[in-house]
Amino acid sequence: MASIEHVRHFQEELQQLKTRLLEMGGLAEEQVRLAVKGLVDRDRDLVDRVLTSDEPLNALHIEIDNRCFTLLALHQPMAGDLRAIVSAVKINTDLERVGDLAINIAEAARRYAQHPPVKKLIDIPRMASIAQGMLRDALDAFVRQDTNLAQKVLNEDDELDELKTQIFRELLTYMLQDPVTIEPALDLVLVSRHLERIGDHATNIAEDVIFIVSARDVRHHSGEVG
Amino acid sequence: MASIEHVRHFQEELQQLKTRLLEMGGLAEEQVRLAVKGLVDRDRDLVDRVLTSDEPLNALHIEIDNRCFTLLALHQPMAGDLRAIVSAVKINTDLERVGDLAINIAEAARRYAQHPPVKKLIDIPRMASIAQGMLRDALDAFVRQDTNLAQKVLNEDDELDELKTQIFRELLTYMLQDPVTIEPALDLVLVSRHLERIGDHATNIAEDVIFIVSARDVRHHSGEVG
Repeated sequence: MASIEHVRHFQEELQQLKTRLLEMGGLAEEQVRLAVKGLVDRDRDLVDRVLTSDEPLNALHIEIDNRCFTLLALHQPMAGDLRAIVSAVKINTDLERVGDLAINIAEAARRYAQHPPVKKLIDIPRMASIAQGMLRDALDAFVRQDTNLAQKVLNEDDELDELKTQIFRELLTYMLQDPVTIEPALDLVLVSRHLERIGDHATNIAEDVIFIVSARDVRHHSGEVG
Repeated sequence: MASIEHVRHFQEELQQLKTRLLEMGGLAEEQVRLAVKGLVDRDRDLVDRVLTSDEPLNALHIEIDNRCFTLLALHQPMAGDLRAIVSAVKINTDLERVGDLAINIAEAARRYAQHPPVKKLIDIPRMASIAQGMLRDALDAFVRQDTNLAQKVLNEDDELDELKTQIFRELLTYMLQDPVTIEPALDLVLVSRHLERIGDHATNIAEDVIFIVSARDVRHHSGEVG
């Protein structure tokens, strides 16, 4: 049944699926970048743009899901290809959530801009830049099936976690000293949690890559890896 | 190729997959219940038990994932069965995250117990009970392919959201009045967010059920449904 024509067609479709996932990753990452920029620059127009720009991501999410189903139903792939497609379904979900988290960050940015700034924001953009890098690397690792790059993503998660704790401690000091900062500082705490979760999604993707390539499940043994 | 024997075997395997998902849902829900009980009762032993009890959930997560891959690879299901199995992969991920959120709640509970209580906790157990109910209903809806029950889950999400906002406003008042409450109140804010996310996972599952049954994608049109 699996003619050469059929196989070639399948590989083309699989390639297109990967391209669309990369596009989706790019859109999600851009939403995060703009939301954090809107927060730092107190730029309400930019924040509003993020809040009204989730439609392309949602449309792509549905398209990618449909592509995965079609590939599974029409080509009945085995082994490695099967794993890649099922992982694409999961990665698609992860990227959609990253888009949702960008919206959450923009919502916090909108509220934050209604108060005097608590402090100059340095660690939050740093967290954002690490999380965005992790996301990019995780998707590159998926497309190139590169477990070393995937492992690098897993290692970076600790840095994100440390920054989150550091941000929390610093903001707590502000809140304890001056009650006026409590409400805006709370939004900064939430933003740092959203960024941590973006890192978690990148980690999920990286774990899927290692799963696809090595068929070895590292998901509940990350401490033993590397 | 699809002998009656083969079909019967496949249906048995699919049934077992659903049973295992229900078991996993039960474990995840129980972890949430115990974590919140540990928070409310300030029971450190119970909290520690939650923190050290994620292994069965993680093992089940891997087992269910493997079952899904085996079903896809060996039986090459079509249409409705294909959707059900791919949805099982997603639901499995959602339930694993619920287990992680129970751990997050337990961690917050452990910190919270180190401070004097901010207030009598009433809305947080209420949120927990709604989120647990949503999770149970979503899984029942999946097993019975019941879109009405799935729709009920989607409707309940608003209630959870309102409670979260109400909890936030109330805790903010405490924090503004007395800086001593800031640190423990922050943990209660985080717990309410974790419970909201458990509701989100139940919502994801409910949307999958509607997707399987009606092959209609409601995921980005929830406002138009019902």
